[in-house]
Amino acid sequence: MGRKRLQESADVRPTVHTVAARAGVSIASASRVLNGVGGSPETVRKVREAAAEVGYVPNAIARSLQSQRTELIALAVEDIGNPVYVEMMRAIEAVVASSGRQLLVHATGGRIDNETALLRRLANRYVDGMIVSPIRVTADHLTALQDSPVPVVVVGQLAADAPVDNVRTDSRRGIAMAVDHLVATGRRRIGFVNGPLDTVPGAARDAGFRAALAAHGIALDENLIEIGDFQYAAGRDATERLLARAEPDALVCANDLIAAGALHTLLARGRRVPIDVALVGMDDTELARMMFPQLSSVSLGSAERGRRAAELLLQRIADPSLPPRRASVEPSLAVRASSAQAQVPAQPSREEVTS
Amino acid sequence: MGRKRLQESADVRPTVHTVAARAGVSIASASRVLNGVGGSPETVRKVREAAAEVGYVPNAIARSLQSQRTELIALAVEDIGNPVYVEMMRAIEAVVASSGRQLLVHATGGRIDNETALLRRLANRYVDGMIVSPIRVTADHLTALQDSPVPVVVVGQLAADAPVDNVRTDSRRGIAMAVDHLVATGRRRIGFVNGPLDTVPGAARDAGFRAALAAHGIALDENLIEIGDFQYAAGRDATERLLARAEPDALVCANDLIAAGALHTLLARGRRVPIDVALVGMDDTELARMMFPQLSSVSLGSAERGRRAAELLLQRIADPSLPPRRASVEPSLAVRASSAQAQVPAQPSREEVTS
Repeated sequence: MGRKRLQESADVRPTVHTVAARAGVSIASASRVLNGVGGSPETVRKVREAAAEVGYVPNAIARSLQSQRTELIALAVEDIGNPVYVEMMRAIEAVVASSGRQLLVHATGGRIDNETALLRRLANRYVDGMIVSPIRVTADHLTALQDSPVPVVVVGQLAADAPVDNVRTDSRRGIAMAVDHLVATGRRRIGFVNGPLDTVPGAARDAGFRAALAAHGIALDENLIEIGDFQYAAGRDATERLLARAEPDALVCANDLIAAGALHTLLARGRRVPIDVALVGMDDTELARMMFPQLSSVSLGSAERGRRAAELLLQRIADPSLPPRRASVEPSLAVRASSAQAQVPAQPSREEVTS
Repeated sequence: MGRKRLQESADVRPTVHTVAARAGVSIASASRVLNGVGGSPETVRKVREAAAEVGYVPNAIARSLQSQRTELIALAVEDIGNPVYVEMMRAIEAVVASSGRQLLVHATGGRIDNETALLRRLANRYVDGMIVSPIRVTADHLTALQDSPVPVVVVGQLAADAPVDNVRTDSRRGIAMAVDHLVATGRRRIGFVNGPLDTVPGAARDAGFRAALAAHGIALDENLIEIGDFQYAAGRDATERLLARAEPDALVCANDLIAAGALHTLLARGRRVPIDVALVGMDDTELARMMFPQLSSVSLGSAERGRRAAELLLQRIADPSLPPRRASVEPSLAVRASSAQAQVPAQPSREEVTS
């Protein structure tokens, strides 16, 4: 096997067209021989020799080689530093491991080119399937999803007619649960620190917050809304800006990283939490439970979403003919010290410390 | 290509032995034909037909197929929820991306069987190389490292003669920096919350703490030492046990997750931080900066170690003949509100808030 041929096969994998041209037979004839369904002895010989000369590997063999190699499942997330993905990943890992496979994780940094590059790389079948949780969904994503030769499950909102296995939650409903809780405990100047409105979660949370206030007949004060990104430092800075012009008695934050930043600013600015300002985060991550006081947080069922996504993916790998399926996970609210009040019948636990 | 043959090639990849047996020629003859170095026309025909029948793929083709597929670098870490690995991963990702490759991350849960399974899986060349950061290094690790057909770089302590590219830091020295700082600010009843002593980092930190106290002529009080694992909840529980029997004026914690747990217990038990108890974590992660008060922490250069490991790996991929190399990263101490005192000339920054 010469250097040149190797080089060729690394650059452009020989196809049935290459073999047919080399053997001087029709593509149909080459295909019949390569698929083992016959041909004259002379054609069989010519095609087999041509196949050996160009280093042709039948797709089936390539696939079986690949199947010897993989047993890997990929998870692509935006920010590996966001604890919400840690919980999702652990749940996925448990399902994947129980199927005898191993999980690998890609961090995309939320860059669309990274996400679509990963999806396109699936053409190389380096994994048996992928779970992806994009925070922005573009036409490029949908094209790459539809072209993917291996199964992909999307965690997050997709258009209703997207022909893709999908696990979602209702973050609008989740925001409403936070607002309902704060209103029930007497808060009225409820602020909101959100992520970018051009992201799927940012837009859903914004709509949810506005609808929830309206449902309680509370007029929206735009001074009580701030936008950063979905990170700790942004939450701290956004809360500084908000406190410079308004005096909320409660803050809802679009994730727990933002809420941790908001807590820092509130405490550094002398606000007592929850006495002066009640605080509710979102995603109900380990980070919320690591803060002091521990943060109330809306759970969007990240572990459950991960588990369901992994199950959908394994089912799809086992049976590629299944129709596209869609699963939903309901949000819930964990009330902890950062928004608890005497009149709130919170579930006491060893975890909880009232400040 | 029949179902049965595919099945066979998925279970056991045909070798030159399979082809020789099928063609009825010697292994040497089959090998010559398959490697393109000749044979009688009859032998060539028989071997090529046998190769096609059993679905034989030359290793070279398998490798070149594989090289079309990868451009991937793997990072295997114990706990993807530990923020120290987030910082390391981001640094590795930057180097890997600049080489046109993509990074994938495996979480091993610190389970040795997982780590060695990953190393053995490298035989399938699904990545171009791997960076692994084991917290326990067994004989199985070393065997798997030596057998690996693709380059592996280890982040962490290894035996001096292990023929493996290695990036390390000096956590004993790091612990000493924490103790020196606490002694310099007047602390004498310095407690220590460590991870398991049968891990490489746990053992090094224990030795470092004992040596550092001795260097200051402070008698060791075993009541001031507690051991859990390297997690938040363990840090909280260990600090409860420690406070039940001793009254430290400072605590050194073996990582920032433990320190976050210790902070929770200290505040919940009415200790003021740093007035009553100064607190120093280790790894200098984002989590340390998210706490209130912000945590002083010993940096073990996780980003720098990641960057160096990625560089060593790319150099090794480019030139497999390099001798084993070893890089060291020096620890440093970031003093923040959790251990700052008026007499400490801390670098003031926007980050820092004295409680």
